[in-house]
Amino acid sequence: MSIQPRPYAVLCGGLGGSRFVDALCRAAGPEQVTAVVNVGDDIEVLGLQVSPDLDTVLYTLAGLLDEERGWGVRDETTNALQLAGRLGAETWFTLGDRDIGLHLVRSRLLRAGAPLSEATRRLAESLRVKARLLPASDDPVRTFLTTTAGELDFQTWFVARRHADEVTAVRYEGADRARPAPGVLEAVSAADVVFLAPSNPFVSIRPILAVPGIAEALAGKRVVAVSPLVGGKALRGPLAEMMASMGHEPGVRGIAALYEGVATDVLVDPVDAAELPGALVAPIVMVAPDSRAEVGRAVLEAVR
Amino acid sequence: MSIQPRPYAVLCGGLGGSRFVDALCRAAGPEQVTAVVNVGDDIEVLGLQVSPDLDTVLYTLAGLLDEERGWGVRDETTNALQLAGRLGAETWFTLGDRDIGLHLVRSRLLRAGAPLSEATRRLAESLRVKARLLPASDDPVRTFLTTTAGELDFQTWFVARRHADEVTAVRYEGADRARPAPGVLEAVSAADVVFLAPSNPFVSIRPILAVPGIAEALAGKRVVAVSPLVGGKALRGPLAEMMASMGHEPGVRGIAALYEGVATDVLVDPVDAAELPGALVAPIVMVAPDSRAEVGRAVLEAVR
Repeated sequence: MSIQPRPYAVLCGGLGGSRFVDALCRAAGPEQVTAVVNVGDDIEVLGLQVSPDLDTVLYTLAGLLDEERGWGVRDETTNALQLAGRLGAETWFTLGDRDIGLHLVRSRLLRAGAPLSEATRRLAESLRVKARLLPASDDPVRTFLTTTAGELDFQTWFVARRHADEVTAVRYEGADRARPAPGVLEAVSAADVVFLAPSNPFVSIRPILAVPGIAEALAGKRVVAVSPLVGGKALRGPLAEMMASMGHEPGVRGIAALYEGVATDVLVDPVDAAELPGALVAPIVMVAPDSRAEVGRAVLEAVR
Repeated sequence: MSIQPRPYAVLCGGLGGSRFVDALCRAAGPEQVTAVVNVGDDIEVLGLQVSPDLDTVLYTLAGLLDEERGWGVRDETTNALQLAGRLGAETWFTLGDRDIGLHLVRSRLLRAGAPLSEATRRLAESLRVKARLLPASDDPVRTFLTTTAGELDFQTWFVARRHADEVTAVRYEGADRARPAPGVLEAVSAADVVFLAPSNPFVSIRPILAVPGIAEALAGKRVVAVSPLVGGKALRGPLAEMMASMGHEPGVRGIAALYEGVATDVLVDPVDAAELPGALVAPIVMVAPDSRAEVGRAVLEAVR
């Protein structure tokens, strides 16, 4: 596989991560960006192989994401799931019909023996996504959370139980035996800057770093952690609550502490600049797609 | 498996077959009817196990069939297939979204090791279908047609090429090694009357009879073949053309000849009564659901 080196690599997962990848693509051009995406949330639903974080990045970059909801495809229907439910299937994990179309194609590729990275490459190509998307690993890595209700897999905790159970520990099953997907170490090594996207460190970034070789490849690189908290709060999701329950200060100082020894820089929103002297600063709120090119340019300016 | 005997068994496939089963259910009560359904049209699409004839019977009896189109679920959308097509999947075999919901549930059951008969039982139960639906076999039987364009599998001939290629021979791959599904021989043996539904003999009824044991179980029974032709024409589908190209007279006499040695009686529509002296006669046009109870009653009256 002969691959042109790209100046920006992003470790990411979830909605914040996909929006940051989109921001970089809009500012620097998608051909300059490699996204290394968390697979710890992956789940089999109705026999389909679902990779929610890869899908969110893919849908975001292809302009298909339901931006309002923050997941899945826009203008979506759920007719398949409704009938499956009538036939006794569990329906707590919502799969839209268009979404199922993608899962069917991916599941068939995987069942035919293609690794997840190859399936992802083909899906991205079909959707004319020019950023390079790589799963952290082609091997299974699954995030489990120790909570006040016992140990739960990620989707049971996050979706089925609406992340209501307090988290006290997180582990990444399979990570110790997983290998980085083809291209991951090369992308990290070749990048001028590696970003840790503004994703949840516990359930998006650390399951990537837990794959042996990836954290090691960051050593000596410029690694910029973009804060997933703005003014002490996550734009979406339970990160602030998780930090508190796991004994971390829910703010940019806590984020800096979490990434100590991994990131060379932390990039924070202007509202948090005073909180963390020495941090890089750029506006990082990028909910609206139209705002993302500007966020991307400001981030690139800040790291220059 | 302790199963109450039912007075009526129907060998069937396709739309005509499903409407006849519906007619009998409406006239005699669904608890009186066992349908033994063709599996020669079964196909894997996008990794899903699709059983078109079983589905048509199931959807018809559950009141879900798109009666206008004659297949699939009514009020259907095709969003999954559209996105799959954008991702490079073949889309000539239309799967609607609700339909995919059923295929997902069935495919998962089959992959978990359930035989097709067990998966069918569960789907029927969920849809509160009280007629007993049995696949002819749990083993693969696949209909192939010799045509002027070469040998084609059923769905390629029927759907992809719109049955435009003239058929000169038909074979049922796997039939010689297939076993009747559990309950099939018992249902046939216990029935007072076995109907051969007004389905295409070559691609619906014969692939059932080709499973060793089923034709033998008919010996000595009252077997009534309901003509799939009315006035020399099929209400839908290419049967008349197939009969001509395979050297059979396209009419009720041709049907009687095809079922010689299998059926004890042929039941024809009043318009064909003069054509086949000695035939049982009842109105058998039952396109509209509301007309079916009456057709069913007339058929039962004719066989009494």
